[in-house]
Amino acid sequence: MRGVKISELQTPALLVDSADFEHNLSTMAAALPGARLRPHVKAHKCTALAARQELAGHPGFTCATVREVEGMAAAGLGEDLLLANEVLEMSRLGHVCANHRARVTVAVDSEAVVDAALAGGVREVLIDVNVGLPRCGVDPADAGRLADYARSKGLTVRGVMGYEGHVVGLESRPTREEMTEQCKALLLKAHGDVGGELISAGGTGTYDINTWATEIQAGSYALMDTAYDKLGLPFRQALSVLASVISVSPGWAVADCGLKALGMDHGNPTVVDGTTFFCSDEHITFIPDEDHAVRVGDRIRVIPAHVDPTVAYHQHLWLTDGDDVLEPWPVDLRGW
Amino acid sequence: MRGVKISELQTPALLVDSADFEHNLSTMAAALPGARLRPHVKAHKCTALAARQELAGHPGFTCATVREVEGMAAAGLGEDLLLANEVLEMSRLGHVCANHRARVTVAVDSEAVVDAALAGGVREVLIDVNVGLPRCGVDPADAGRLADYARSKGLTVRGVMGYEGHVVGLESRPTREEMTEQCKALLLKAHGDVGGELISAGGTGTYDINTWATEIQAGSYALMDTAYDKLGLPFRQALSVLASVISVSPGWAVADCGLKALGMDHGNPTVVDGTTFFCSDEHITFIPDEDHAVRVGDRIRVIPAHVDPTVAYHQHLWLTDGDDVLEPWPVDLRGW
Repeated sequence: MRGVKISELQTPALLVDSADFEHNLSTMAAALPGARLRPHVKAHKCTALAARQELAGHPGFTCATVREVEGMAAAGLGEDLLLANEVLEMSRLGHVCANHRARVTVAVDSEAVVDAALAGGVREVLIDVNVGLPRCGVDPADAGRLADYARSKGLTVRGVMGYEGHVVGLESRPTREEMTEQCKALLLKAHGDVGGELISAGGTGTYDINTWATEIQAGSYALMDTAYDKLGLPFRQALSVLASVISVSPGWAVADCGLKALGMDHGNPTVVDGTTFFCSDEHITFIPDEDHAVRVGDRIRVIPAHVDPTVAYHQHLWLTDGDDVLEPWPVDLRGW
Repeated sequence: MRGVKISELQTPALLVDSADFEHNLSTMAAALPGARLRPHVKAHKCTALAARQELAGHPGFTCATVREVEGMAAAGLGEDLLLANEVLEMSRLGHVCANHRARVTVAVDSEAVVDAALAGGVREVLIDVNVGLPRCGVDPADAGRLADYARSKGLTVRGVMGYEGHVVGLESRPTREEMTEQCKALLLKAHGDVGGELISAGGTGTYDINTWATEIQAGSYALMDTAYDKLGLPFRQALSVLASVISVSPGWAVADCGLKALGMDHGNPTVVDGTTFFCSDEHITFIPDEDHAVRVGDRIRVIPAHVDPTVAYHQHLWLTDGDDVLEPWPVDLRGW
């Protein structure tokens, strides 16, 4: 986009600072090179961004939805896709394997999901083990039995996965370390019963704490948000929403970035050079810092509290360098 | 969609119960017939749904974004569109007026926005007055002055608007009544200074309390959510998310409806026949009621806490009658 400035972008617009983004990718690739990182695409839902992660040396990816698997395979990024989630629409995944010659492995935690995988034409599975997060995953004691069942049906069991989602966001590093150790005991025991080459786990908050998984499923590290920023990780805030000031009153101002441009489950976003007052559907009301008075038409930056559900509202990410727009990246893996 | 059953829909899917929806439209049309209601399309972002509201007798609509105005005009619903929000991209609105022969009126609360309207080719404005919500809107004492300014530039000032957004969601009806009276005093005083045929205000929570506005901007009434449900209004919960159970553990179950399928600013959604535990990006972990045990593959219903940001995540609304899918309604006004 030669010559396009961010001042020309329609707002709200989701910006990715290229220097911060490249810092995040290179920092992670140095810590977890190659297949030691299996980047999670749910954080960005963007094949253009995933292609940069592949260029950084990571051959496989983690997905959360069938749509993400389909889109990644169609974009030529299907060398080793893990759907780290139980799903029932396995025939769509079987279709991906057959038509895109992609490698698709799916998480299973019950005989019902194993049966669905088999019926849908998926050939490779990972046993999803509950390591403490009350969500999906088989009881560690049952992992071996489920693996036996899957193998008895002719499926390849590549190993185990156990996501420590109850740990990754905790601010205290000692607590994260201690709880990750508890997860380790559970998952390695299960892996002993299951076998296979993969022990898949972890996230951005445990990327350098979980040293025993064969691969880490981090996704947020590439863009970051204010929730993860509290953990003191070496990743930079690369994502921001560009918004326009549309109204100024004595004591506050309003910009055009609201609930439909921001994931709100982690609370309010952060206004650069201001304080968030509250968000409405299409507005953010904020109090500008004393030395940063704003006028109608000014642009502000808003830092999301949670990257994943924020990106899912937007059609594009805009890669930027200072005031220049480098590339539009379609958020092409939205929906289901 | 002759013969299609909801059991065939991919999940998560946003369902609209036709009987509840028709009840809501007819109840509102009886209370606020014709132009007394200016339905707000931000709640549903769907021209097919808006067309039903037009059939119910309401000729004009309220929009929150330029994109909503463009889409409504392109769908032939542009007889009288109010963009009840300050925007700066007025040339897109001028284009709508010229190319779709639509009538577009835009809210203004500063000389800067008046100037933008003029430059963009918009000819009609409404003076947006702050009646107590700390967001947009001119001080009531300045409304007449701003109207004079707009008229001096050749714009038509159709009247005033003042949204009591700080009142519409309060659970106590006496409190809503008392605070709406305070808004009345402010807005009618401003209208006295401004003139014009329109006094636009209100929302679903004050639709029968605000008796003095010439038109009410309610939107949520058509679909409803759990936040508005607490107010004891005569509108029914027509909207639900259909989700599939993908995992069952002792004590909880997980379905495929998470943060990217639900607006979360009003808190957790409500699981029918269960209790919400927590939501993740693509999961809802819930505790099934004792007499409603679930198995993998079962379908559940989840009632959103806030309709507007929920709909904005979805590509379709599915109009349903019991187990039958009647029509897919594209959510075609998303984005900006």
